[in-house]
Amino acid sequence: MSFAPLINDTFLRACLGQATDYTPIWLMRQAGRYLPEYCATRARAGSFMGLASNPDFATEVTLQPLQRYALDAAILFSDILTVPDAMGLGLRFEAGEGPKFERPVRSEADVAALAVPDMERLRYVFDAVTSIRRALAGRVPLIGFSGSPWTLACYMVEGGGSDDYRHVKSLMYRRPDLMHRLLAVNADAVAAYLTEQIRAGAQAVMVFDSWGGVLADGMFQRFSLAYTQRVLAKLPRTHDGATIPRIVFTKGGAPWLAEMAALDCDVLGVDWTVHLGRARALVGGLPGGPGKALQGNLDPAVLLASPEAVAEQAVAVLEAFGAPHTDPTRRGPTHIFNLGHGISQHTPPEHVQVLVETVHAHSRRMRGTA
Amino acid sequence: MSFAPLINDTFLRACLGQATDYTPIWLMRQAGRYLPEYCATRARAGSFMGLASNPDFATEVTLQPLQRYALDAAILFSDILTVPDAMGLGLRFEAGEGPKFERPVRSEADVAALAVPDMERLRYVFDAVTSIRRALAGRVPLIGFSGSPWTLACYMVEGGGSDDYRHVKSLMYRRPDLMHRLLAVNADAVAAYLTEQIRAGAQAVMVFDSWGGVLADGMFQRFSLAYTQRVLAKLPRTHDGATIPRIVFTKGGAPWLAEMAALDCDVLGVDWTVHLGRARALVGGLPGGPGKALQGNLDPAVLLASPEAVAEQAVAVLEAFGAPHTDPTRRGPTHIFNLGHGISQHTPPEHVQVLVETVHAHSRRMRGTA
Repeated sequence: MSFAPLINDTFLRACLGQATDYTPIWLMRQAGRYLPEYCATRARAGSFMGLASNPDFATEVTLQPLQRYALDAAILFSDILTVPDAMGLGLRFEAGEGPKFERPVRSEADVAALAVPDMERLRYVFDAVTSIRRALAGRVPLIGFSGSPWTLACYMVEGGGSDDYRHVKSLMYRRPDLMHRLLAVNADAVAAYLTEQIRAGAQAVMVFDSWGGVLADGMFQRFSLAYTQRVLAKLPRTHDGATIPRIVFTKGGAPWLAEMAALDCDVLGVDWTVHLGRARALVGGLPGGPGKALQGNLDPAVLLASPEAVAEQAVAVLEAFGAPHTDPTRRGPTHIFNLGHGISQHTPPEHVQVLVETVHAHSRRMRGTA
Repeated sequence: MSFAPLINDTFLRACLGQATDYTPIWLMRQAGRYLPEYCATRARAGSFMGLASNPDFATEVTLQPLQRYALDAAILFSDILTVPDAMGLGLRFEAGEGPKFERPVRSEADVAALAVPDMERLRYVFDAVTSIRRALAGRVPLIGFSGSPWTLACYMVEGGGSDDYRHVKSLMYRRPDLMHRLLAVNADAVAAYLTEQIRAGAQAVMVFDSWGGVLADGMFQRFSLAYTQRVLAKLPRTHDGATIPRIVFTKGGAPWLAEMAALDCDVLGVDWTVHLGRARALVGGLPGGPGKALQGNLDPAVLLASPEAVAEQAVAVLEAFGAPHTDPTRRGPTHIFNLGHGISQHTPPEHVQVLVETVHAHSRRMRGTA
């Protein structure tokens, strides 16, 4: 496949620790319910999975936020549960209930029956990737993504969302052997899934460890981090001559930032409990390595407040990260602006405009490039 | 008031950094739905508030876990929302819904109308404290408690529980002046409430900052920590000649442990994302001060797994804290065993037995006092 050359590569450069003229920004769940045009497309698609499983609809909604805002990256519109669905667990969306699996993984036999699914069952996702990449026509890079092995396991064992993760944690504490087997299958499936997304046109990949932060110290390292690393170890470093940056986001991962610095990835995504300056000191540059770029970390609730609060808090996040790296001859600590979690459906779209403009303008001022 | 002399003071000694023969243990929400006898009393009381507002019922359920297990402290059975209820917000419990306020605090006028309630409206709580203290007859100390100013504010503004805290966070970002006024009232109310609990017989007090961890870095310090400190500054240090230890528990507080070390309290409660050995290195002893004792931090989900897992993970928590302080001539780092959050209603009661016995036996072995 050949695609149009990239016009705005600011995001990819920042991922790789290269100096940029300003701080790039994109938003987790940027194609979402806060946009009326998204809701309109979803209504036409009939359902969430109707939207996510149709490459034309997925392309349409992926591009919607880019038509409104000067965002520096697009992210594949898809669901986090496509992989377990392809494993045969039977994904359903019930009105007002969130995703459910018809056949959750609870018993030894359930775990034994799991296998890496045939990637052809996920062809609709890869087709969406290619379709979106073409539609982007090189404007900004396209990020592919997957849930982490642990995060997928939470949904697979609980059978849906959870407040206390009691089924998955109970299985982990009671039968760690079964949990390790489940996570190994998930890791190999996620690696195959992300590799196919890269082949289909994804220019960076992100692993969402949305539920890593619910684990106890010690368990996080063994049951989440180790399997995220297993995924990373299996991914191609380059495709068609281009380096494919890897981003790992762990919600609630603040206690383990130093340990996450050892992951074979380029960027660590952090939530709003993290002080970016302190995180930069911890993981921004390590002896013998260029360190990690940092992605984040505005509290999505700021976007609900007021335009003034959005501008003020966006500046606070940029200033917390501190003086940007500007030396074009070497790699150094870089920041990709994002929220600390997905954007809220209650966000007024005009607040996002203020956010994007503030981040671009203030980060240029910080570099003296305004 | 005079009460029976204390027989088992292990918990109070550990709070104050004094060496003990073993690691004391109590469990957040230890009087709760996992106990069939609690459910029976609650059924007789007719409702949760019927239970919490009647000193006889509150005494009965507070003592139930102590009749089963060799716990080293009792904690007042009450609700976290008694103070805002006394402010006139109208607390209701709906079946399967959790607590709700009939009149949530949303507008400038709502905030302006708030005031520290007359403590006579909370007499039923203080009566329960005195009744429980008498019924304990000196077996173990009684802990009084309150929600933190921020945690109470979350409920008061949201009107109940929340997934995203969007109303309270939006108010905080949009109108920080209103939020500061609300929190100042809460802090003064909580200080008066805990002071009255101490006068009524509470031998230690605990501030539950259950929702501090949802705040962004920077906001936590200004909108939660500062008001917890305001509470602590107003509490009596001693009562009837005895030192009253203060415990501050922040769920999700791992990113701010070093800052919490500056609180005027004796014990920091931590959740299961914290490595107790690392926390001890950070806050267990500070230049010029004895440091903080640590309370925690077993994941409550461990209690759902199996007796073997409970024993194994309890030992892991004790070993993570490390070698206990055993010098009777000085204060040093001490550990109070607890969960990292309230006990789950799905806990098999016999697993709690295994936990308490394991903590007592293994911590004696660690001291060579077995």
